[in-house]
Amino acid sequence: MNYSITAKIMGVILIVESLFLLPPLGLALLDQDGTVTGILMVMAIMLAVGFGATKISAKDLVVAPLDGLLIVSLAWVVASIFGALPMFLCTKMSYVDSFFEIVSGFTTTGSSVINDIESFPRSIILWRSTAHWLGGMGILVFTISLLPKLGVGGFQIFKAESPGPVAGKIESTVSQTAKRLYSIYMVITLSLFVFLLIGGMKPFDAIIQTLGVVGTGGFSSKNDSITGFTGYMIPVTMVIFMVICGTNFAVYYQIYHKKFKDIIQNEEVRFYLTLFFVAFLLITANLYFSGYNTLAMTARDASFQVSSIMSTSGFVNADYDLWPSFSRYVLLVLMFIGSCAGSTAGGIKIIRIVVLFKLIKREIQKVVHPKAVLPITINGKIVPDEVVMGINSYLGIYLTIFVLSIGFITLSGVDLVSALSSVATMLSNVGPGFGQVGPTNNFANFSPIYKLYFSFLMLLGRLEFFTILAIIAPKRRKKRFVRL
Amino acid sequence: MNYSITAKIMGVILIVESLFLLPPLGLALLDQDGTVTGILMVMAIMLAVGFGATKISAKDLVVAPLDGLLIVSLAWVVASIFGALPMFLCTKMSYVDSFFEIVSGFTTTGSSVINDIESFPRSIILWRSTAHWLGGMGILVFTISLLPKLGVGGFQIFKAESPGPVAGKIESTVSQTAKRLYSIYMVITLSLFVFLLIGGMKPFDAIIQTLGVVGTGGFSSKNDSITGFTGYMIPVTMVIFMVICGTNFAVYYQIYHKKFKDIIQNEEVRFYLTLFFVAFLLITANLYFSGYNTLAMTARDASFQVSSIMSTSGFVNADYDLWPSFSRYVLLVLMFIGSCAGSTAGGIKIIRIVVLFKLIKREIQKVVHPKAVLPITINGKIVPDEVVMGINSYLGIYLTIFVLSIGFITLSGVDLVSALSSVATMLSNVGPGFGQVGPTNNFANFSPIYKLYFSFLMLLGRLEFFTILAIIAPKRRKKRFVRL
Repeated sequence: MNYSITAKIMGVILIVESLFLLPPLGLALLDQDGTVTGILMVMAIMLAVGFGATKISAKDLVVAPLDGLLIVSLAWVVASIFGALPMFLCTKMSYVDSFFEIVSGFTTTGSSVINDIESFPRSIILWRSTAHWLGGMGILVFTISLLPKLGVGGFQIFKAESPGPVAGKIESTVSQTAKRLYSIYMVITLSLFVFLLIGGMKPFDAIIQTLGVVGTGGFSSKNDSITGFTGYMIPVTMVIFMVICGTNFAVYYQIYHKKFKDIIQNEEVRFYLTLFFVAFLLITANLYFSGYNTLAMTARDASFQVSSIMSTSGFVNADYDLWPSFSRYVLLVLMFIGSCAGSTAGGIKIIRIVVLFKLIKREIQKVVHPKAVLPITINGKIVPDEVVMGINSYLGIYLTIFVLSIGFITLSGVDLVSALSSVATMLSNVGPGFGQVGPTNNFANFSPIYKLYFSFLMLLGRLEFFTILAIIAPKRRKKRFVRL
Repeated sequence: MNYSITAKIMGVILIVESLFLLPPLGLALLDQDGTVTGILMVMAIMLAVGFGATKISAKDLVVAPLDGLLIVSLAWVVASIFGALPMFLCTKMSYVDSFFEIVSGFTTTGSSVINDIESFPRSIILWRSTAHWLGGMGILVFTISLLPKLGVGGFQIFKAESPGPVAGKIESTVSQTAKRLYSIYMVITLSLFVFLLIGGMKPFDAIIQTLGVVGTGGFSSKNDSITGFTGYMIPVTMVIFMVICGTNFAVYYQIYHKKFKDIIQNEEVRFYLTLFFVAFLLITANLYFSGYNTLAMTARDASFQVSSIMSTSGFVNADYDLWPSFSRYVLLVLMFIGSCAGSTAGGIKIIRIVVLFKLIKREIQKVVHPKAVLPITINGKIVPDEVVMGINSYLGIYLTIFVLSIGFITLSGVDLVSALSSVATMLSNVGPGFGQVGPTNNFANFSPIYKLYFSFLMLLGRLEFFTILAIIAPKRRKKRFVRL
């Protein structure tokens, strides 16, 4: 492991992080809410440690792919350790609570331990939501521009899935892809902000909700999330943008390059949209025939909750935990699946589900033609068996951690549905779950050890278990290096 | 599809089934409980249809492997359709209820729709439990002696796992392997019966409990299952025999041939016993520190419930649904896993879990050595990648059916835990679940459509989705045939 380059990168991250404390600082000055000193102190700490770390002399600028994964994981952890400080210093929250809250921010989860967010200084609310936006940006750069370069066994699927941004000759470097992603991300952010203003939201609420939607995080400026924003304009706008942010961002490159045929033929996007509409129709029907509300209101709430859970945002505009078992169950299933790879959303990802279905289909065909060579294809390209095996083992790791984690959480005394859905919502970075972690509850009642464990699960889910692979792999692979 | 040979085989099955109605008939004559006429009628129907079917002229005696699977599946369905008649004719149960009950018998599930079994004629209770014993025997012959011969893609794992009975030259034919299995099965059955008599059970109760344990079914002669049999002798005897019946029967061949080294090195058996002891210790600790009972009583109940659920018997000696979340959750996980392949137990099977873990381990090793060829081995033998893929797609099919079925069951209005555990208990052929299908409840309150769907799930679980493969495979494979 190249410690000096790792330290340097962490230093840069802290410096960048401190810059994003400027808007909260501005708001603190405007509101005179007593957080100015705290925020300035945190900025000073970040800059001091950050510049200190960048001064460490590094011999070379190469890292092994595994170290690359470790550095990315470490980036989230370091950003969270320091990012928790504004909350810790400016509010009455404990450090563990602050850490949980900011990890939930950076991993774009949106789970909270705060019961009354409206009583918090606006500067702190803004910082918490900024973490969503930064985390979403970070994961995009990681999965679309950095990951294909690292090319660790089985994860080439991201490469296969986002040929737009990485296959082109001109756009082949990490930084160029990243720049294009920044642009797309900014366009989506600004568009949503404007639409929410038009919809009648106050500027501050519009900013907070925008950061939450674009990062698919789900932190709101309101205690009851989106429930208070009645009418259709705001919820429907959010539905559209949550669906947009759950789509593979490679699609937006393709729109830019007018490759509309590629988009239409994109199997992941097709499956994603189909799943959205099927779930939307099923829940609308189930709710409507249970006498929920008018058809229009039912469709609004159903589409909102479906897109919110699928995109792993976790905004709430109705207490879905009171819905019939069937509707709740559909939401639970969507919680596991999440959205497309190469988006800001979490979850297992549509692409893995599609590959799994194709594998099952192939095995059935093999019963008939045992000697036939039947490659699995995605968007017309062959997915190597090695990648299929990688996806299977990803699912295996997911299930193993899922099953063991629920066991640990049940020791806290919560019921099975709460334990199961809390682990699912953490690993998929959704936000709320069901029961004791349902839409009207939060994670405040867990003891610190569980809050730390949940933080670990959020990071694990966000980084798709790459961390584990990088840490438990017994020996560092030395042959292949990546020049950063 | 060779219809004439299929009809012939079904005919033989009905004739054999009618013979197993003789003991219930004897009991009916002894008790004079008014079921004599009914049972005689059913026997007459079975014999008439059976002999009629065997008279159909068949051109040749070969079937395609896929047809073989279909015939096996059909055998369970036909045996259930006719096997439901004694209950339908001799009690007040509807045909759907009778069908559910006997499917639960033949699939060795043990779920019931009967609220007061003690009010039933003993002849009918005996018939219901006889189905367990026959079903257990049938699945042993199928998975150990017939399946390796059919050798359908990915299912060679059973062959790999039971080298004892099928690899030897002398024992290479289906019928010889089957005969040896009958002997082992009889020895276990008689031993348990004697032990239960020694333990103080009345002969009839001992017979019913024996049939339930050996078939890993779980139908009892008592409304409260084993709860009424206090003390240690009976529960502990049952624990030992449930563990025995969840072990791969190939092991008993190896004991006979004194291949003790093979048994000790058998990875599936080692994992199985380890899992049993870990679960037993975890639940004992959890219960004991929750103030459940004395340590000895706690250990008794914990070992009973763990072995009962793992072996997928589903006997109950304590209302485990009242246990703490953690203990309940451990039982739920065991419900999915089940026991060894080549036993009378259901579930995903230990061997598949072991292969999945080895796949994960390999993928992690591949991160370090991307070019290395790392075959997965079981008991020192290489498992072909084809078989690994087969297991993955089995798990994929399992998950797909599991996820969709829960959705359907939630439409009945039950809560999520009840829906989830009812589908799990059906697919794994356990018996009771949690909540509304928990140890003190049963499936009586579901409407007929759900009872039929549950029956379908029990058959699917018992036959490990082979049915589905055989039916949905678009074209029959014609090249490879098996001479029966």
